[in-house]
Amino acid sequence: MVEATTSPSRSAGRRVREADEPRESLIARFGADKPLQLDAGVSLSPFQIAYRTYGTLNAARTNAVLVCHALTGDQHVVGRHPVTGKQGWWETLVGPGKPIDTERYFIICPNVVGACMGTTGPSSINPKTGQPWALDFPVITIRDMVRAQAMLLDHLGIDSLFAVAGGSMGGMQVLQWCASYPQRVFAALPIACATRHSAQNIAFHEVGRQAIMADPEWKGGRYETEGGNPTRGLAVARMGAHITYLSDAALHRKFGRKFQDRANPTFSFDADFEVESYLRHQGISFVERFDANSYLYLTRAMDYFDLAADYGGVLSNAFKDTPTRICVISFTSDWLFPTSESRAIVHALNAAGARVSFAEIVTDKGHDAFLLEEPELFGIVRGFLDGAGRARGLA
Amino acid sequence: MVEATTSPSRSAGRRVREADEPRESLIARFGADKPLQLDAGVSLSPFQIAYRTYGTLNAARTNAVLVCHALTGDQHVVGRHPVTGKQGWWETLVGPGKPIDTERYFIICPNVVGACMGTTGPSSINPKTGQPWALDFPVITIRDMVRAQAMLLDHLGIDSLFAVAGGSMGGMQVLQWCASYPQRVFAALPIACATRHSAQNIAFHEVGRQAIMADPEWKGGRYETEGGNPTRGLAVARMGAHITYLSDAALHRKFGRKFQDRANPTFSFDADFEVESYLRHQGISFVERFDANSYLYLTRAMDYFDLAADYGGVLSNAFKDTPTRICVISFTSDWLFPTSESRAIVHALNAAGARVSFAEIVTDKGHDAFLLEEPELFGIVRGFLDGAGRARGLA
Repeated sequence: MVEATTSPSRSAGRRVREADEPRESLIARFGADKPLQLDAGVSLSPFQIAYRTYGTLNAARTNAVLVCHALTGDQHVVGRHPVTGKQGWWETLVGPGKPIDTERYFIICPNVVGACMGTTGPSSINPKTGQPWALDFPVITIRDMVRAQAMLLDHLGIDSLFAVAGGSMGGMQVLQWCASYPQRVFAALPIACATRHSAQNIAFHEVGRQAIMADPEWKGGRYETEGGNPTRGLAVARMGAHITYLSDAALHRKFGRKFQDRANPTFSFDADFEVESYLRHQGISFVERFDANSYLYLTRAMDYFDLAADYGGVLSNAFKDTPTRICVISFTSDWLFPTSESRAIVHALNAAGARVSFAEIVTDKGHDAFLLEEPELFGIVRGFLDGAGRARGLA
Repeated sequence: MVEATTSPSRSAGRRVREADEPRESLIARFGADKPLQLDAGVSLSPFQIAYRTYGTLNAARTNAVLVCHALTGDQHVVGRHPVTGKQGWWETLVGPGKPIDTERYFIICPNVVGACMGTTGPSSINPKTGQPWALDFPVITIRDMVRAQAMLLDHLGIDSLFAVAGGSMGGMQVLQWCASYPQRVFAALPIACATRHSAQNIAFHEVGRQAIMADPEWKGGRYETEGGNPTRGLAVARMGAHITYLSDAALHRKFGRKFQDRANPTFSFDADFEVESYLRHQGISFVERFDANSYLYLTRAMDYFDLAADYGGVLSNAFKDTPTRICVISFTSDWLFPTSESRAIVHALNAAGARVSFAEIVTDKGHDAFLLEEPELFGIVRGFLDGAGRARGLA
C-alpha cells in the first residue's frame, strides 16, 4: 500500500520531528508489500520518502529530472527551507529560466534514505519499538539510496528520467543511477564526485564520526530517547568537514589572517581570526538542522561507495553498453574530489563506449563551487541539457 | 639565580608531572631576576626550560646546533622517550655520522615554552596559586619561545650557534631566530614551514581546539585540579591534524580502501577501513604523552606567527643585512606548508641579499616527510652543514 500526502505546515516543532512529518514536502509511504532491500542484507519496511517537486510533468512523462542532494543537503532545492528559513541549496542552478529550468522540466528531489528531513533514517520511529531507530537503523549505501529513489519513480509512474543531476554525494548517486538503471536515465550530470571515496576522505569522515561519538550526549546514539543532543560533537564534525569543502585560496581570499572586529591579537582563545568565527558559526548553525546519527550514516554510505568493486573491480563494466549521455564536471580547486577522480570516470566511460563529455571548471572556490555562483557551470549544464532535450524531443 | 640540574629518572609517574620533573632531561631554572618577557605584554617568572644535549661542545664553543621541535615534538630528539619508550623524533637525521652529526656538533634541543615535557607551560604549577596554571597561563608566541631559547644559550655560555634547524613549528622558530638574533646564527635550516600560518591552517587548528574545549572533561582548562582529562577531545584534535601531516597519496599508498582484518564491509561503525583504525590509534597514543592545554597554547602560537607583520608588513625587512647562511627546504606533497610558502621565504631572503639556497624535495610523504626516511633530505642537510662548517672553521 503506497500513498502520497502533503504534510501540513507547522508553525513550530522540534527539528527531529521533521523526520516524521516534514514540512513543505510530499511523502511517499511504502508499506509491508514494498520493502527496501538493503546492501547490508536486510530489508527496511515500512519506510517513507519525503520529496519535493518543481515544475510540471509533461503528458508523455519524459521531462522528469531527478536532483540528488549531497551529504548535508535535502529535498529543499528551491524555496524557503522549513527549518532554517533560508533559500534552497541549488537556487543558483534550478528555477524558472535557470539551467535546470522548472518551466521545461519536472524536477524531483527526494531526501535520501538515512537522512533526517522526512525520509526514513535513524531518527525515524522504529515500528518495532516505538522509539527512534538510532543505531539499530541498518547501515545504508549509495546504492540503497538509489534503489529507494527508483521505487519513488515507480510510485510516481515515471519509467524514465530525462536527467539525473547532483554534486558530491549527489554525484555518487548519479553515477550509481547510470550503473544500476541505465535504461531509465537519458542524461546524467555527475558533478564534483568520484566512483569511490579516497583514504583521505574516509579519514576526514572518521574524524567527524569520532567527534560525534566522543560527545557524552551522544549516548551510544540513544540521545533522543535518553535525553540530550550531541551538538558539540556534531558542530566539531561540521567545522572540520567544512574546511574540506573550500579551497585554501578561497579561505585566504575570504578571510586571510584578518582579525575579528579588532586590529591586534587578543592573546586569548577567543575567535581572534575571522576564519575562526566563521567556522564556529558553521558548526552552530548546522546542528540546528541536522541529526547527528544521520551524519554518521550518510558519511558511512559515502565511505563504502566503490562502484568498480560491484563490477569485478573494472569500472568500465559499471557503464557497459550504457545508452546514457553523461556530462562529468569537476572544479580545479576541489581537493575533496579532485579532477583526477573525474578523469577516471571519463576514462571508464570512454572504455565503455559511452557518450561522455567532460568539463573541468577553473575556479578557486573549492568543492562547494557546485553550490555557488559559477557562470561557467551554469553554461555547461544549460548547454548539455538543451542538447539532450533536443535529442529527447523535448520542446 | 639560575641553576641547572639533571632530574632523577623515575620508574613511574603521571604524564603531567613530566611538566615539573622531566626525566632524561636537563633543566635550566630562571628565577625572579630573569623573567621571560612575553609578546602578550606580561612576563613569566620564575620559569624553567627542560632540554637535552647530544655530543660535545668544542673549546671554542662554535659547534652548537639548536634543534627546534614541532607542535607535538619535544626535547627527546634522539634516544628513548621517557613517556612513550619510543625512539627520538629525529633519529633519522641526528646521531653519530648522521647529517646532524653528534660526533661533530653539540646539539641542544629545548622543550618550548607552553609545552608539557618540563619547560614551563599551562600544566606547570603557578607559584601564585600552587595549582597548575591551566588557562591562566599567558598566551605565548613563536617569538616568546625563541626568546626563552636565547636565554638558555646565555645560561649555557654559548654566544653564537653554528646552526639552528627545525621543521614545521620548529622551522618557524628557525625563521624567528634569523630575524631576532641574526648575529647569533651562522647557518639556518627552516624545513617545511612558513613565515605565517594560512587561513586554512588556522581553521584546522581551530577545529582541534574546539574538539578539546567541547569535551566536558576539559572543564574550562581546569581538568588537573578539578579531576578528569579531555582525552577524547584531544584524540579527535590529533586525528584531524594527523590527516594534514600526510598526503592523499601517502594515505592511499599505505591504506587505500583496504578493510581491517576482513574482506568485506561490516555494515557498522566499527573501524572497517585500515585508515580508520590507524587514525584511532594515532589519537589514543597521543593523549598518553601530550597535555590538552599545551595543545591549545602551541596551536595558538603557530596561528599568531606572522613574521612580516613585525617588520612593517615587508618580509625581507625581517632578514635585512642578515649574515646567516640559510637553506630552505620544502616537500612537493606537503599541503600544510606547500612549496609556495617556502618560495616566499626565499624571495624575501633574496630581496634582503641573504645567502640562501633552496631545495624542493620530490616525495609523496606529505608534511611529515621531514621526520621520515628521506635520503634526499639527508643529503641536502649534510651538504649544507658541511659547507657551513668549513666556512665556520669546524674540523
